[in-house]
Amino acid sequence: MGTFLETAAGLKPTLIHKSVSPQWLVRLKKDDTVFHGTGVEHVASAEHIKTKDFNKLDSVIIDFADHLVGYLSLDVHLRGDPQDAPAKIRFSFGELPFELAEPFESYKGVLSSAWLQEETVFVDVLPATLTLPRRYSFRYLKIELLDSSPSFSVFFDNIICDTVSSADETKIVPFGTKDEKLRHMDYIGIMTLKDCMQNVFEDGPKRDRRLWIGDLRLQALVNYYTFRENDLVKRCLYLFAGLTNENGQIASCIFDVPKPAAGNVYLLDYSLFFLSALYDYYIYTNDTKTVTELWQVALRQLEIAASRLDENNIIRDDKTWWSFIDWHKDLNKQAPTQGVLLYALCRAEMLAKNLNDQKALDLITALFHRALDGAQKLWDGEWFVSGENRQVSWAGQVWMVLGRALDGEQSTNLLKRLIASGTKYTGMATPYMVHHMVEALIQCGLREQALEYLNGYWGHMIENGADRYFELYNPDNMGESPYGDNRINSFCHAWSCTPSYFIRKYEAFFTE
Amino acid sequence: MGTFLETAAGLKPTLIHKSVSPQWLVRLKKDDTVFHGTGVEHVASAEHIKTKDFNKLDSVIIDFADHLVGYLSLDVHLRGDPQDAPAKIRFSFGELPFELAEPFESYKGVLSSAWLQEETVFVDVLPATLTLPRRYSFRYLKIELLDSSPSFSVFFDNIICDTVSSADETKIVPFGTKDEKLRHMDYIGIMTLKDCMQNVFEDGPKRDRRLWIGDLRLQALVNYYTFRENDLVKRCLYLFAGLTNENGQIASCIFDVPKPAAGNVYLLDYSLFFLSALYDYYIYTNDTKTVTELWQVALRQLEIAASRLDENNIIRDDKTWWSFIDWHKDLNKQAPTQGVLLYALCRAEMLAKNLNDQKALDLITALFHRALDGAQKLWDGEWFVSGENRQVSWAGQVWMVLGRALDGEQSTNLLKRLIASGTKYTGMATPYMVHHMVEALIQCGLREQALEYLNGYWGHMIENGADRYFELYNPDNMGESPYGDNRINSFCHAWSCTPSYFIRKYEAFFTE
Repeated sequence: MGTFLETAAGLKPTLIHKSVSPQWLVRLKKDDTVFHGTGVEHVASAEHIKTKDFNKLDSVIIDFADHLVGYLSLDVHLRGDPQDAPAKIRFSFGELPFELAEPFESYKGVLSSAWLQEETVFVDVLPATLTLPRRYSFRYLKIELLDSSPSFSVFFDNIICDTVSSADETKIVPFGTKDEKLRHMDYIGIMTLKDCMQNVFEDGPKRDRRLWIGDLRLQALVNYYTFRENDLVKRCLYLFAGLTNENGQIASCIFDVPKPAAGNVYLLDYSLFFLSALYDYYIYTNDTKTVTELWQVALRQLEIAASRLDENNIIRDDKTWWSFIDWHKDLNKQAPTQGVLLYALCRAEMLAKNLNDQKALDLITALFHRALDGAQKLWDGEWFVSGENRQVSWAGQVWMVLGRALDGEQSTNLLKRLIASGTKYTGMATPYMVHHMVEALIQCGLREQALEYLNGYWGHMIENGADRYFELYNPDNMGESPYGDNRINSFCHAWSCTPSYFIRKYEAFFTE
Repeated sequence: MGTFLETAAGLKPTLIHKSVSPQWLVRLKKDDTVFHGTGVEHVASAEHIKTKDFNKLDSVIIDFADHLVGYLSLDVHLRGDPQDAPAKIRFSFGELPFELAEPFESYKGVLSSAWLQEETVFVDVLPATLTLPRRYSFRYLKIELLDSSPSFSVFFDNIICDTVSSADETKIVPFGTKDEKLRHMDYIGIMTLKDCMQNVFEDGPKRDRRLWIGDLRLQALVNYYTFRENDLVKRCLYLFAGLTNENGQIASCIFDVPKPAAGNVYLLDYSLFFLSALYDYYIYTNDTKTVTELWQVALRQLEIAASRLDENNIIRDDKTWWSFIDWHKDLNKQAPTQGVLLYALCRAEMLAKNLNDQKALDLITALFHRALDGAQKLWDGEWFVSGENRQVSWAGQVWMVLGRALDGEQSTNLLKRLIASGTKYTGMATPYMVHHMVEALIQCGLREQALEYLNGYWGHMIENGADRYFELYNPDNMGESPYGDNRINSFCHAWSCTPSYFIRKYEAFFTE
């Protein structure tokens, strides 16, 4: 047995390459029916690009007709006199059309502008075959001839994207729901997952291209019902286990290159999800060997969480800790994290039983009762409250339901009341949080409501032009971005791919 | 015997590579003693760059302490947390400091902005070794970290320029003039030539990187006294001979890559210089075989010129022709071109004699008398006049002297009168034209005046910060550019390298 990182290295997948040609030359147009009000109209078949002469400041937008993750190459040719100046060509990539509507120079967001996908290339000698240096995540490509010389034109040909993914599309588990809408929602989820499956499960192939445990846990769930590339889940679990900090805590994210390294953010809920992800892995693979190897690392996350319980058995809420829960600037994390702890403990209990680890089971049981006691103290008779200001949040209710802090009927009533409350309490911000709401609704048998979220949230994305699921989506405010500029948002994002999991796992439930 | 182009291909030189490290980190400063008022001051030894952390918008200017032509590589490292965003780095290259004083975005010149030497690179994974894709001509390198992330810094190390030239510095003919100033002027000329000697004699390694016959002729002259890479001259002569137009005319310039091709500009003086360059090649190499092979092509240029003589044996001056002579927008080309024709005929005569080609000699002699007759008709008793408006230009007088339209004493007096006339008549614009003035002065034995031009023109360039000779230089108006923006000027330019030729060829004359 090597180290955890050696095991992870041994599981590095082979990327599958597929060449994709563009389909259309398009023009941007105002379109209020799609995300951010910018759609496209077809101008010509993409083959026509080779008939188009580019002179200074000429540009074109090319539609590959599907979201791609890969490497771009193309031929650039000369038409006219010998080339008496270099050709300066800019390539800009967009997952959605609106990203290409304004020059990237106008970007004012808080995340690094270096994430905006572009390259400027000077070609001294034409003809030339260009292979752009990086991996891009896009469907739309803008090519601009920024400068050349009046003596010649250039034209482009053989534009190809060499796409990459470690997901093998030929292995997708067949699934035959008759509901057209659910089938399409399932397809988009699978394709979203595929584009995020690279050497690790990335959160988003455009940004951050990183392995986050919050995303991994959800990606793995979809994977078990679709590609079943279970070794990639295993690899990621070993990466996390091999890169704990000096306290034994699981990092929130891993940088896979140049060599595996932990990100410097530690989140209590995310650390606990290592246990939850390990549990899911066990359930779907029955791989006792792996679970046994990683079991102590997983248990350590419980100890770390336990050390944050105060004398009332409630997660201490002060400035010294972080939990993610949801991307919501006003959200208090105390109650939802208490729910996450309970949720993780439920899974830990089942793993301990399966591993016949009585000592661990005793500890887990004791800790569960403490955490449950704390949770009950956060219950005000109607809602779970969180933090000093006794915040009532959707996240708090959802996670307490998922952590089984209430019995089944109470949980069902709580969720019904929550939905009825509308916008009164602190709501949900991300597909990641909405996933947990759907999971809680299904757990409570609230079929109609769960379907309503699937259709009204992910289905709504599709209706608004999504061909992959987005990192962020607020149907009521589609211009919302936590980053100050939507162009930096990721429009193919792992934590959003779970409709496929719900639709496939709960097929009978949804179609009964 | 293969075709001319096959012969040229067989003579392709091997480029000599030399790695050069930077010397200084510098800061731009206002300095009225140097070209364009921008100099540098040393901040630290270049090795210190690896101790400097770059965060967003940090930049540095690096001085390689010599003008270089080559390929840049460097290592980019990470300092701090894992790299949570790409690093967007811009590299800008300057032959002179002032080129880096303003962002290239402000360029408004008439030549393509694509000539401005820069690259923007996005680095997804640090550390990385970058090798920039193109050949650059520079001494100063600006590195800017345009964006990254607050989580990390980058630093740079192992900055290396892999310089290239087909000139072998170990073969420079030793030369021991005791005059310090002339020795330095000679050195700068040789280095200018070296940087322009690549697979062909380029006009300028920054721009246009092309083989022009006007430059070739002067480069070859310097080469015969310095590197003696005579096969490169031969190669260039064969390229021109292999790419004449359907009329047999020599093109003004050749594009060497992707495959040899003629530029689409035909200039009467430049075509005639093929003959002149062939003559020089013969004088310095005694390579009768080459001259014999190319002789008919050379003679054809005389026929083409002859066909432009009118009934008065004067070059017809109308809208249908082009002659270069000098880069001066008001210059009439008639009289100077008449001089160039005479100059070429003198050389043709000597070649015909050496080749024992009596038939050609008869034609040349007859044509010389016609051209001389025409020249005499342009003489108004004091000056040679040119064109409809009877323009008196320095170029006209100089070329008539070089073409020996007057006897020695008349020529000497003409040049003396010309100098005495100051700025009264249409003057000279480029080092290329000033070269011919110096050649004419030497021919007339006007040693002091020739030295005054060498010192006052090329010497003045050096005093103003040149470490290579410039494409364009007007000591009275250093901001002058025919392109609307000096940054596009070439500051290492072939046609400017001839002080080395003068100083070496006429050493005894200058130091008597």
